[in-house]
Amino acid sequence: MSTTLKFTALLLALKAELVAQPSKYGSLWPLPQKVQLSEVSFKLTSSSFRIVDAKDSTAGPSCSLLQDAYRRYYEYMFGIAKRQQLNKGRRTGPSELTELQVWITSPDSECDSYPSLTSDESCESLPHSYHLHRVAGIQLVYEDEYGAKSINSTTISDFPRFAHRGILLDSSRHFLPIKVILANLETMAMNKINVFHWHIVDDQSFPYLSRTFPQLSQQGAYHPYTHVYTPADVKMVIEFARLRGIRVIPEFDTPGHTQSWGKGQPDLLTPCYSGSKPSGTFGPVNPILNTTYDFMSQFFKEISAVFPDAYVHLGGDEVDFTCWKSNPDIQKFMDQQGFGQDYSKLESFYIQKLLDIVTTTEKGYTIWQEVFDNGVKLKPDTVVHVWIGGGSNEEMGKVTAAGYTTILSAPWYLDYISYAQDWQKYYKVEPLNFNGTEAQKKLVIGGEACLWGEYVDATNLTPRLWPRASAVAERLWSAKDVTDINDAFSRLSVHRCRMVDRGIPAEPLFSSYCPHEYKGI
Amino acid sequence: MSTTLKFTALLLALKAELVAQPSKYGSLWPLPQKVQLSEVSFKLTSSSFRIVDAKDSTAGPSCSLLQDAYRRYYEYMFGIAKRQQLNKGRRTGPSELTELQVWITSPDSECDSYPSLTSDESCESLPHSYHLHRVAGIQLVYEDEYGAKSINSTTISDFPRFAHRGILLDSSRHFLPIKVILANLETMAMNKINVFHWHIVDDQSFPYLSRTFPQLSQQGAYHPYTHVYTPADVKMVIEFARLRGIRVIPEFDTPGHTQSWGKGQPDLLTPCYSGSKPSGTFGPVNPILNTTYDFMSQFFKEISAVFPDAYVHLGGDEVDFTCWKSNPDIQKFMDQQGFGQDYSKLESFYIQKLLDIVTTTEKGYTIWQEVFDNGVKLKPDTVVHVWIGGGSNEEMGKVTAAGYTTILSAPWYLDYISYAQDWQKYYKVEPLNFNGTEAQKKLVIGGEACLWGEYVDATNLTPRLWPRASAVAERLWSAKDVTDINDAFSRLSVHRCRMVDRGIPAEPLFSSYCPHEYKGI
Repeated sequence: MSTTLKFTALLLALKAELVAQPSKYGSLWPLPQKVQLSEVSFKLTSSSFRIVDAKDSTAGPSCSLLQDAYRRYYEYMFGIAKRQQLNKGRRTGPSELTELQVWITSPDSECDSYPSLTSDESCESLPHSYHLHRVAGIQLVYEDEYGAKSINSTTISDFPRFAHRGILLDSSRHFLPIKVILANLETMAMNKINVFHWHIVDDQSFPYLSRTFPQLSQQGAYHPYTHVYTPADVKMVIEFARLRGIRVIPEFDTPGHTQSWGKGQPDLLTPCYSGSKPSGTFGPVNPILNTTYDFMSQFFKEISAVFPDAYVHLGGDEVDFTCWKSNPDIQKFMDQQGFGQDYSKLESFYIQKLLDIVTTTEKGYTIWQEVFDNGVKLKPDTVVHVWIGGGSNEEMGKVTAAGYTTILSAPWYLDYISYAQDWQKYYKVEPLNFNGTEAQKKLVIGGEACLWGEYVDATNLTPRLWPRASAVAERLWSAKDVTDINDAFSRLSVHRCRMVDRGIPAEPLFSSYCPHEYKGI
Repeated sequence: MSTTLKFTALLLALKAELVAQPSKYGSLWPLPQKVQLSEVSFKLTSSSFRIVDAKDSTAGPSCSLLQDAYRRYYEYMFGIAKRQQLNKGRRTGPSELTELQVWITSPDSECDSYPSLTSDESCESLPHSYHLHRVAGIQLVYEDEYGAKSINSTTISDFPRFAHRGILLDSSRHFLPIKVILANLETMAMNKINVFHWHIVDDQSFPYLSRTFPQLSQQGAYHPYTHVYTPADVKMVIEFARLRGIRVIPEFDTPGHTQSWGKGQPDLLTPCYSGSKPSGTFGPVNPILNTTYDFMSQFFKEISAVFPDAYVHLGGDEVDFTCWKSNPDIQKFMDQQGFGQDYSKLESFYIQKLLDIVTTTEKGYTIWQEVFDNGVKLKPDTVVHVWIGGGSNEEMGKVTAAGYTTILSAPWYLDYISYAQDWQKYYKVEPLNFNGTEAQKKLVIGGEACLWGEYVDATNLTPRLWPRASAVAERLWSAKDVTDINDAFSRLSVHRCRMVDRGIPAEPLFSSYCPHEYKGI
């Protein structure tokens, strides 16, 4: 027996040449702010283990959000296939953990409300009794050598470094079936990502089915029935996200990136001219017509009702002035307004009016950095989204110096792929690595990994996103000094196998294997 | 009605700004050598359509290979879900095609044998009567605007430009579940790829379960039960491939790339020394022991029986001499043999003996280019596999000047990924673009796309391989002058959606959509 054990140890040592040393933090991802590990282990059995509301918890059985989480985590722990009937009469073993007590301490349990920028995401776990806000700690469960589910006595004190930890998915360049969106929301929750930035429409297609303007998707979607998000779809996405502590921030990008809008909304886009005649093609939203603003008022009124989050993303990036320049009516308007040949003033004119419209819906707004760069007057609580690579540190400095809240995406464009372990590049980013005061640094509320859709659809989105986005997730959650790349490699390797085990095709970091390989193709 | 049609046409015109113009060859991929299209169309209905053996065909109902293909193609045409009961009494419409006659003309129908380098892959199709060797022409079926399956009268005369059109998959860096291998064999057939180069073992793991040396996988696989290919698995892969006209060429790479072999076969690898003592680590196969050659004789005797193809790939790449140099016994042997300090002579010594061993099994062999570069004496029918990027044209010139048959992989390392449409880079390769005589060019029997496994497993292999490997497939099948990249883009876009429709997660080329998006995640 002893010989066998030694032999196994030798084999493991040989394998260690090819794989990383295990981390003392096991597979925790993202790494909690404080972890105290102990050698004392307890067994868990599906027939006895229960997740219960602590006596003094401010949330109880009527909190569907919690009950839903209990089921989800129970299934993560014991698997769906192996679940046994709960056996209440069974005598429990001496070193068996039979109860996870969930003790919500905040006065507002947020059971029925939506997560927000100010939601309390902190949690404490103590040996035997867990105080939790959103359920955590499940990553501590492991299988011992006999396959028994076990957990070591561990004290965790955890909270996120940044409040806004997002992922942008683009459902316009390619339509993303609801199934794909839900699977990725599930995976976001596994990585403590709490914002789904839904870049829902763009030039290529308009899959959002608007109740007020149904012709937008009728004409602008790739297909009016099979490639649209119905009101019920949108509702399902928002509720699925809410139950996992994820905010859904929709982006309706204007005045550029709007080719698909023009198909169902005549006169919304600027007619481009070739010489003295309209060429038949269209440019950005037409900023000189009153009908444009009537449309936007009605449209954003609907959006503000459909999407419960306090913020909406208004885009504002990459406005091409060529078409505006070609159009004689636009030129006349420029003269009247005294804009000269400065088309960024026309852009600002449009955005300013749009912001006023959205303000009446009582939403806050996020805009891409160009809107700030062009000097548009913004409300003080505007969130400026920094995305342009090269010079993004300077931009972060400027935006925060002007007093605006900001989120960073420039180093995290995950649609740009390269050979080998590019997750390390994302991991090494330090979001506050710009010149600025402490007050300025406080204005950085977080960041987002962006997976633009030119080369991504249901066939390859999930493995391309995970675990590369997990690197961003840890950077935004864990303490600033969590930078050991070898330790991260080890934890992330196991975390990625955990995602695979849960049915998510998260791609490998490097040569190795998972105990249970992905079951799909 | 006419108005509606015009309106539809206008919409299509608008969409055409964003997607490529349709090709006059529709979705044919790879493009046949000769195609004559006609406007005359026929309808196909699942209830009446039959695929039958032509009267004078040399193969009939007893040819299971053909019957299997008939079923596969019938299901491709009409789908599994929508299949109706065959209705023999039904009166057929005037422009309905009810029969595909398959007329095998070769005296050897190859129904029960394995495909080989000399298999006849040519086919002719005539309107109403098809002469086919391996079934083709299915890509001509389309849905008209009412969803009716239709086919235009078309004359095709087709044959491959190169006989060897392969894909290398690596099941050592990551274990590839059988399901993944089969799905990719199916997709290879859709792209007329006819060689599966199975790089089955390497340093990282030894998943091949050898009947003669079961300890190789017992000790050398990532896991001895869940991460191995049993004899039944291997048999299934070979038969699945055979039914699709695909050869399975296994690679057992030696003397380098063999770390995993050493775990289950003591003394097979060279002990490395640190100073005067063994360091505990191991290098390439030990070329100075008789036991090594005894082992290889038995091992390759098994391999030659298990894998029916006439060729086996023996590797021979990237041999690191560091360990050999450190070992005093090796040094003594070098002196005895008069090799001086030229370790490539020792490598040649080993390979020469290995080739003699494999020759006794009556297999041909393929080797990586280093074996040729190092001057090993090769049998005239050896296939030299050119893989080193930079200078591969010169290498092709040298190898063929020496009279050896060759296959090209250097420009087609699909594990190297980059942003945007890299399929175009693979597509633009011209394999015969090296200096040499016509006789030399004839020695190039084809090429292989290689998807090495460091960063690829079940989670991401399929979308990373397709449709990028489709570009290589057309280059190796179609005529040399088929180089119109826009036409290729258009055909490949539809071909990729066809793969998606058949359940294969082939990734998108660019912003666009498929009528039926991928159903998985």
